[in-house]
Amino acid sequence: MTATRAIITTKRGASAGRLLMRLDEAGIGARIIKDGCEAIVLAEGLINEGKLQEMPEVANFTIAKSQFPLASREWLQEESTVEIAPGVVIGGGNALVIAGPCAVEDREQIVKTAQAIKKSGAMALRGGAYKPRTNPYSFQGLGVEGLNLLSEAKRITGLPIVTEVMTPEDIDLMLPHADILQVGSRNMQNFSLLKALGKVDKPVLLKRGMMATVDEWLQAAEYILSGGNFNVILCERGIRSFEKRTRNTLDLNAVPLIKSLSHLPIIVDPSHGTGDRALVPSMSLAAMAAGADGLIVEVHPNPKEAVSDGDQSLDLEEFDDLMRSIKRLLSAISGKSLECSKCSVAA
Amino acid sequence: MTATRAIITTKRGASAGRLLMRLDEAGIGARIIKDGCEAIVLAEGLINEGKLQEMPEVANFTIAKSQFPLASREWLQEESTVEIAPGVVIGGGNALVIAGPCAVEDREQIVKTAQAIKKSGAMALRGGAYKPRTNPYSFQGLGVEGLNLLSEAKRITGLPIVTEVMTPEDIDLMLPHADILQVGSRNMQNFSLLKALGKVDKPVLLKRGMMATVDEWLQAAEYILSGGNFNVILCERGIRSFEKRTRNTLDLNAVPLIKSLSHLPIIVDPSHGTGDRALVPSMSLAAMAAGADGLIVEVHPNPKEAVSDGDQSLDLEEFDDLMRSIKRLLSAISGKSLECSKCSVAA
Amino acid sequence: MTATRAIITTKRGASAGRLLMRLDEAGIGARIIKDGCEAIVLAEGLINEGKLQEMPEVANFTIAKSQFPLASREWLQEESTVEIAPGVVIGGGNALVIAGPCAVEDREQIVKTAQAIKKSGAMALRGGAYKPRTNPYSFQGLGVEGLNLLSEAKRITGLPIVTEVMTPEDIDLMLPHADILQVGSRNMQNFSLLKALGKVDKPVLLKRGMMATVDEWLQAAEYILSGGNFNVILCERGIRSFEKRTRNTLDLNAVPLIKSLSHLPIIVDPSHGTGDRALVPSMSLAAMAAGADGLIVEVHPNPKEAVSDGDQSLDLEEFDDLMRSIKRLLSAISGKSLECSKCSVAA
Amino acid sequence: MTATRAIITTKRGASAGRLLMRLDEAGIGARIIKDGCEAIVLAEGLINEGKLQEMPEVANFTIAKSQFPLASREWLQEESTVEIAPGVVIGGGNALVIAGPCAVEDREQIVKTAQAIKKSGAMALRGGAYKPRTNPYSFQGLGVEGLNLLSEAKRITGLPIVTEVMTPEDIDLMLPHADILQVGSRNMQNFSLLKALGKVDKPVLLKRGMMATVDEWLQAAEYILSGGNFNVILCERGIRSFEKRTRNTLDLNAVPLIKSLSHLPIIVDPSHGTGDRALVPSMSLAAMAAGADGLIVEVHPNPKEAVSDGDQSLDLEEFDDLMRSIKRLLSAISGKSLECSKCSVAA
Repeated sequence: MTATRAIITTKRGASAGRLLMRLDEAGIGARIIKDGCEAIVLAEGLINEGKLQEMPEVANFTIAKSQFPLASREWLQEESTVEIAPGVVIGGGNALVIAGPCAVEDREQIVKTAQAIKKSGAMALRGGAYKPRTNPYSFQGLGVEGLNLLSEAKRITGLPIVTEVMTPEDIDLMLPHADILQVGSRNMQNFSLLKALGKVDKPVLLKRGMMATVDEWLQAAEYILSGGNFNVILCERGIRSFEKRTRNTLDLNAVPLIKSLSHLPIIVDPSHGTGDRALVPSMSLAAMAAGADGLIVEVHPNPKEAVSDGDQSLDLEEFDDLMRSIKRLLSAISGKSLECSKCSVAA
Repeated sequence: MTATRAIITTKRGASAGRLLMRLDEAGIGARIIKDGCEAIVLAEGLINEGKLQEMPEVANFTIAKSQFPLASREWLQEESTVEIAPGVVIGGGNALVIAGPCAVEDREQIVKTAQAIKKSGAMALRGGAYKPRTNPYSFQGLGVEGLNLLSEAKRITGLPIVTEVMTPEDIDLMLPHADILQVGSRNMQNFSLLKALGKVDKPVLLKRGMMATVDEWLQAAEYILSGGNFNVILCERGIRSFEKRTRNTLDLNAVPLIKSLSHLPIIVDPSHGTGDRALVPSMSLAAMAAGADGLIVEVHPNPKEAVSDGDQSLDLEEFDDLMRSIKRLLSAISGKSLECSKCSVAA
Repeated sequence: MTATRAIITTKRGASAGRLLMRLDEAGIGARIIKDGCEAIVLAEGLINEGKLQEMPEVANFTIAKSQFPLASREWLQEESTVEIAPGVVIGGGNALVIAGPCAVEDREQIVKTAQAIKKSGAMALRGGAYKPRTNPYSFQGLGVEGLNLLSEAKRITGLPIVTEVMTPEDIDLMLPHADILQVGSRNMQNFSLLKALGKVDKPVLLKRGMMATVDEWLQAAEYILSGGNFNVILCERGIRSFEKRTRNTLDLNAVPLIKSLSHLPIIVDPSHGTGDRALVPSMSLAAMAAGADGLIVEVHPNPKEAVSDGDQSLDLEEFDDLMRSIKRLLSAISGKSLECSKCSVAA
Repeated sequence: MTATRAIITTKRGASAGRLLMRLDEAGIGARIIKDGCEAIVLAEGLINEGKLQEMPEVANFTIAKSQFPLASREWLQEESTVEIAPGVVIGGGNALVIAGPCAVEDREQIVKTAQAIKKSGAMALRGGAYKPRTNPYSFQGLGVEGLNLLSEAKRITGLPIVTEVMTPEDIDLMLPHADILQVGSRNMQNFSLLKALGKVDKPVLLKRGMMATVDEWLQAAEYILSGGNFNVILCERGIRSFEKRTRNTLDLNAVPLIKSLSHLPIIVDPSHGTGDRALVPSMSLAAMAAGADGLIVEVHPNPKEAVSDGDQSLDLEEFDDLMRSIKRLLSAISGKSLECSKCSVAA
């Protein structure tokens, strides 16, 4: 705890391995976070800043006191951006709305939803193929068949795919289908899964645990970042409280709080955050007004017949109305834009 | 619990007392909620709707299943409005921003604050003269002197005054000074106080208990309403959760939820709801985007020297900036208006 | 906050008023907590311990860093005792079991209960005459009639009476009837009530607020102690959590925690702490095993017909069984005794 | 949800596969929970009890309405027992105390602890080799080396080993070393892990999630049971609340509640449940008085130098004192016994 941490960027072409040896001689532990032309090294110990600066491999460094140095604003003062597909970027002024059903049910359901949400302006399609269910006898998702249906919806609409991964063993199976791998609330501190996702070259959507503090959440993100995967998007989805009228208590305080502590983009899930379709539009607007970088919204062509989470799903028309409201809101209060996100990288 | 309740409006000039006798003969308990030309009577028992309609005093009635019939949308489908001073109205499309320091400290502090917040567009001044403090040795407020200073600030600026009442015994003392009597979070279920406020002809600002469910909150409001005082404004101010980075967890879900359950206006306190000045502007916007009818914001000319709650108080300039943002937001997303509230009654 | 506090005991016959003047000259604020032959004075400020010791009125003093100096173990290392009736003592090895119905309903109910619980070994009778009810239309208690019935039960059985006071105005009414004035969970931070009880010469049973931290609870006790009433008994009655199967979450951690922080006696209410009769016996034993100084248990001759809280009330036989189990437990694990409490003062 | 479930025991030698076919023809879904001479089959659908009884493979069946039929008392009215090593049994009157350090640190630490706790009467040794840590840079456990050290401590003392498994991939590695596989609080809803443990022939210690309801917890147990592994022990370890003085709020209500809902044995972890060594003995006694089937206690030869959780670990002498108190308590209040558990199976 008392050790100081430094995040070091090496000079172009310098050997990160040699830097580790040099730090080791100085009694400082270190690990390579990201190797390459300019490597990122995390050093931990009694660091003499003057001597560190003099090491030939060191280009520059940041001393970080935070428990989540790589996720912290101490290291990166600018908001970081994550490109989830060619030209689809979140963060740094680009808002991202993800929509789709809780679970993939069949071809018609997922394709129809994808086409409709695209038309309304959503930039990515969500849908669960492997579902974490409280009860072992509940529908557990279509599995591989669900992944194939998601890929088909992507072929038809071009929308990138967001889907949940529940265990390290399933990651390889999902990579060809998913553009963003989602970690669900119950797995936020599944450290084996987080470590495995640190080694993957895909954006990760890390939902806040329903019982997790903001500090624990950012440390969970740090597990992924410290593995070398810097493409992490946070998602506030409601925490557990004593209030019973709503499924969860959506903690929008977390949005400006995360913005002050971390450079990572943060989106909000008003569907799980309320558990009630009637509250979703208001809380979507509230989330964007609080400064969120986007939303993930449950949408179903026929919520009443949804296999799961129908009570909190918007139908296609309600979602379309919501998107119009969000655009009006963003034009009034922020520089953020839904429209420009697709061209921001091209620029 | 199984009894049915009916809220009855009597015919003009009919005797409410006679109606009570008639109901009593039918084995139905009843109480006069509000007497007058058209009285409101609450009846409870095995109610035969046909027979009730035939009673000569009955103009019309509503069967209410809710635990908070007078506060419910079952009874009033329209949002109710509360006039807190001539021409200053909240509810039904009129937003109200209340601002001011946690505690009245001295003449200069309260007058300067009042003048500044008025200029920025606030419509009422808050300030505590009697403070509920966790520790018996903490500053307990200026008492009567504080009330006098509030009245002076009102004379100078014309702003109506919002101040907290902690016990039934203090109500009479406060009536000449206060335009809105505030019930603090710790007193939300001080039923003796609620009953006493039901007999007062002044608006009451009822803060949500920090660990009260929405249902308990609306039943607390029902205590005031059932005493005949219909001028109740609800205030969400954050609930207690496990998250430690923020003083409270602002439960904005409660805003659209209250709107669906009740006709009463609801405002939000982002200062106590976050405990952190840096989060107040974002959460103020979020609250308005969620559909709140207004805000109560802690503002101090010099937050660093505030006797209490300095960490969560905006300074005068920050508040002015916030008011500009709120106006932009409201113009974009709702029919609500800050400007028109002063003339809405005149119309 | 940074000020130091000292609790001073004056010399026999010394003038506490003169000590206050002397402290004031030294720039130290002070208040008389308890006047008399040996007064207790609380001083607050930059205290020079050497100079304080030299003041002629000072017999001895304790520097207290706690936010609740009079309630703290810093001041009193020994457990304090409270005599609730001649020879009926709690604390310092004497356990106290209070039992009775939630609400006084009629003469037969309360007298029958009193007789039965006395026979089983209870040392005080509880019963509500003024009830704090969430809903304004629920039964609010028999009021004065209830107080009279409690007094009659006392005349018949000799059992001291515990009943709840909800507002400062009712204290005088209750003094002739009550041996312990109970402050309910919802009123734990009703500071006006706490201040008024600090001026009363009767033991106070201070229930923990359902949303109160242990620190807030002890500061609430400090309100009473700082008024000069040192006869405070704490009561853990469950806190609010997300768990829905039980009415509250009984926080038995609070028992040994309070014992380490404070000298005040603490009892446990397993009836509200669980909300479920079937759990009451187990949790009563658990509370005593955790080190509680006693219990307050809801008992009703016919729980199924109880006006309130029937689900969590034991019947007379169940209570008798429980008392036998408690006696076995106490004989095995502690020096505490139910039997000796009535003679402990005489000794 | 509306479907009825039946837990069927087949006749000796009857084919469970044939029963499934027969049920399928009747439009009833079914799965084999445990195959063998007498198989257990779970059927789900519109079940006609008369027809079910007539099926030739059916010996008897139980209709279960619970969401956790195999874990419920509906199915098994008797408390179930789990044999964790030859002659070491928990449940059905046999209490089990597990003790040991949070993390295995070195040979001396683990062997010395094992020897001491055995002498004091503990029946199993706990120790973490793979540690779930909030921060990625914290000590993550000795891994395989830790497992080997645990096995050595077992060879020397004969104590069965309890250690945590964090991911399905690690199960095979652990089987030769562990007698009980522990699922930590953060993994209580790691459904992939639960499913994998359902296929293992080892007892599983399932800790309650720090924000899991009792119903969610029992459904998590059902995941393991429904895989065919009936050797599940529940462990209450404290839930998250607003109280900050203690690490968690130990929910002892859960002990009698679980006893009423389920036949599974339940133990209590007072170390995590309080986070404070000073509270551990009191809460250990409270847990046993509440009816728990045992304890899991953190013990370290030198808590001040422990790599993790030193603040909540007892030293060897404190643990020895605790064991004496527990024995006294059990002899007074229950038929449970620490001594007889080793021979209970032989009988």
